[in-house]
Amino acid sequence: MSAAGTDVRTATARVLARCDELAALSASPDGIERVYLSPEHAAANALAAGWMAAAGLRTRQDAAGNLCGRLEGREPGLPALLLASHLDTVPDAGRYDGILGVVLAVEVAARLRGRAAELPFALEVVAFADEEGTRFGTALLGSRALAGTWDEAWWSLTDARGTTLAEAFAAFGLDPARVGEAARDPRDVVGYLEAHIEQGPLLEDADRALGVVTSIAGARRFSCTVTGEARHAGGTPYERRRDALCAASEVVLLVERTARESGVIATVGRSQAFPGAVNVVPGRVELSLDLRAEHDGDRDGAWERIRAQAERLCAARGCGFAAEEHHSAPGVVCAPRLQEAVRRGIAATGDAEPPALYSRAGHDAMAVASLTDVGMLFVRCAGGISHAPEESVEPADVALALDALTAAVLDLAGGDLVGGDLVGGSAEVPAGIPAR
Amino acid sequence: MSAAGTDVRTATARVLARCDELAALSASPDGIERVYLSPEHAAANALAAGWMAAAGLRTRQDAAGNLCGRLEGREPGLPALLLASHLDTVPDAGRYDGILGVVLAVEVAARLRGRAAELPFALEVVAFADEEGTRFGTALLGSRALAGTWDEAWWSLTDARGTTLAEAFAAFGLDPARVGEAARDPRDVVGYLEAHIEQGPLLEDADRALGVVTSIAGARRFSCTVTGEARHAGGTPYERRRDALCAASEVVLLVERTARESGVIATVGRSQAFPGAVNVVPGRVELSLDLRAEHDGDRDGAWERIRAQAERLCAARGCGFAAEEHHSAPGVVCAPRLQEAVRRGIAATGDAEPPALYSRAGHDAMAVASLTDVGMLFVRCAGGISHAPEESVEPADVALALDALTAAVLDLAGGDLVGGDLVGGSAEVPAGIPAR
Repeated sequence: MSAAGTDVRTATARVLARCDELAALSASPDGIERVYLSPEHAAANALAAGWMAAAGLRTRQDAAGNLCGRLEGREPGLPALLLASHLDTVPDAGRYDGILGVVLAVEVAARLRGRAAELPFALEVVAFADEEGTRFGTALLGSRALAGTWDEAWWSLTDARGTTLAEAFAAFGLDPARVGEAARDPRDVVGYLEAHIEQGPLLEDADRALGVVTSIAGARRFSCTVTGEARHAGGTPYERRRDALCAASEVVLLVERTARESGVIATVGRSQAFPGAVNVVPGRVELSLDLRAEHDGDRDGAWERIRAQAERLCAARGCGFAAEEHHSAPGVVCAPRLQEAVRRGIAATGDAEPPALYSRAGHDAMAVASLTDVGMLFVRCAGGISHAPEESVEPADVALALDALTAAVLDLAGGDLVGGDLVGGSAEVPAGIPAR
Repeated sequence: MSAAGTDVRTATARVLARCDELAALSASPDGIERVYLSPEHAAANALAAGWMAAAGLRTRQDAAGNLCGRLEGREPGLPALLLASHLDTVPDAGRYDGILGVVLAVEVAARLRGRAAELPFALEVVAFADEEGTRFGTALLGSRALAGTWDEAWWSLTDARGTTLAEAFAAFGLDPARVGEAARDPRDVVGYLEAHIEQGPLLEDADRALGVVTSIAGARRFSCTVTGEARHAGGTPYERRRDALCAASEVVLLVERTARESGVIATVGRSQAFPGAVNVVPGRVELSLDLRAEHDGDRDGAWERIRAQAERLCAARGCGFAAEEHHSAPGVVCAPRLQEAVRRGIAATGDAEPPALYSRAGHDAMAVASLTDVGMLFVRCAGGISHAPEESVEPADVALALDALTAAVLDLAGGDLVGGDLVGGSAEVPAGIPAR
């Protein structure tokens, strides 16, 4: 354990330093913002490619801008176990959401490099280029390209400056016509593992560092428009107003009330009133709505109630309510064999019965689930805070995550590979990889 | 009356056509937007200067970008009666707010040109360059420059692109150091008259074309910030959220409730949530608040109640509420002698007892009131609609406004000038202009 202890401390320090290095690649001087097909995206890929190369991985950027690094197994060309997460961020982001999973995966590959000849699969680290959907409003573009579920309708999506996705591809040096080359053949992969900060407080509340993800809640996202009448703020008596912002405010509170009552997670993240002049009654408000639940049926039922009541609330004010769905992901269940590998990996670090929890947040794993089995490991984060600069992890938890993820890979590779050098001696002998 | 009838029909058609011409000078292809110190501002000044010159006025652009056209009275250099309104607009504006008053004033001057030698004052038409405050967030910049109440602190105001007012001045070809030259000497003016659409439904409800304005409600304007915590939309349970948008929604509804209960006019015209991502609980919402009432004390009392309750509502959600006042105008009473001139002017058109009403909207007259006595004439507009593309006036009402404004000027000039040629014979003999 003493050699492993030194190793894991050094590796953990490197992981955290790399998260810091990536945080400096930002479009904004005051915070972290790194969106798909931006100069920061290119810089992050270049930086991470260097780390991958140093870890002995053969790197390439795929046709969708995802960065891939491959370590061959005991013979070249074996199907790969994918270890992945994403390098893009929301605006004013933290430094671990997605990033930690990529950097941990690189470190796991580095640790297993010397034992690659024993691995019954290739290891492939994938740094997805778009999970958040910050730039084009549609999420998981990177992982959907890899999963082969790219939608040609996306080419006309535009960013805030009116640049289409197709134009952004070209500006980044990618050929839209070749995006299909990013898609993987299911026969070339054996499974997918992703480590990620929890982005919620449940592990912290349970006083546990790591957790096994059982499923990922599927989100539905809507662009909602409340329409009233823009009128002069001074001259228009209240009884004549059709104030879209007052109506939208009632909708926001309705969404919150419905979510609290039903246990569904609902968020209005975007809201803006138009025309947006200090002396004009708002004639229109644009709102986003994000809905998720452990069970898709609960989520869908809540949406029907929200829609019906929002229409009634708005109509009572002479306003209209319209909603357009622009994202819908079914909930995804993590493959039992991968849940078990993650559980054993965590158990190898000393927590024999790690918490099992479902993910309230969406992840690249959701998109990859249409390609291969997926599993996820959650790392505790301070206060459950994510998508904010205060996002924080404990070095000790990162060290445990590194050991657990390494052990999970070894568990999948076959029990005979689990050795004390890497992760200590408590891991059970695993059953090997079932054929897919 | 037959000659006058022909004259007023032609003049009315010209007034409406000129409003249409100005509407075409817009920063937006889809609607009317013409802000201070913009290319459209320059184009509007050039267009209106041509009309003024054709009416026999000597034109100049003043040091703040206001366009002035002067008709000398019975001798050169007499103090002037100002006839004015503004040419700038809100976003997605109508075509009459401000504009109608300027174009009517030009037409009144054109009608009186042949009788200038009889006028005991000069007539000066002023087209103010900024009444709405759309670009820099602070209103009445044009009329405050003329009134000599320019505030040096304004130079650092910025527009949405970060351009300061000082930079915009220079880009427009104006010298910030010389803005003081726009200020008028109170001894050089005898009064101020402004015709304006009502921007409210009271005249329409009363089935009357024109009204006498008794006072102008003073607005107070605040930039309000609701501060919560930006958090991941999926992972953050409701009991942990400090959702700034939910809190802000309660504030919006509180403002509406307080206004309805107190008779004060209150409007939240701007509202935007930040960081503004579909999957992030809003950490901050910026709101504008515009408050006005016939009596300043009612308005100020309503603000104190709103502030106290907004702080409580936000605190109950773990959020903060802060407000910064960026505009405060005391209510202005129209000078009795000018109210009477407007009343007689309207009476000359056949409505012997025109409605008297206070203006819920702010006007350039408020700023000018610190320089000289002000009076206003309101013109009915369809449905009370203003600050919207549907803004509309009836040609017959515009014709009456033209006659009434002309008659009001002649009333001030002295009863002996009121003749049947221009406005028909029903006007009483006025008392002449009191010395100021």
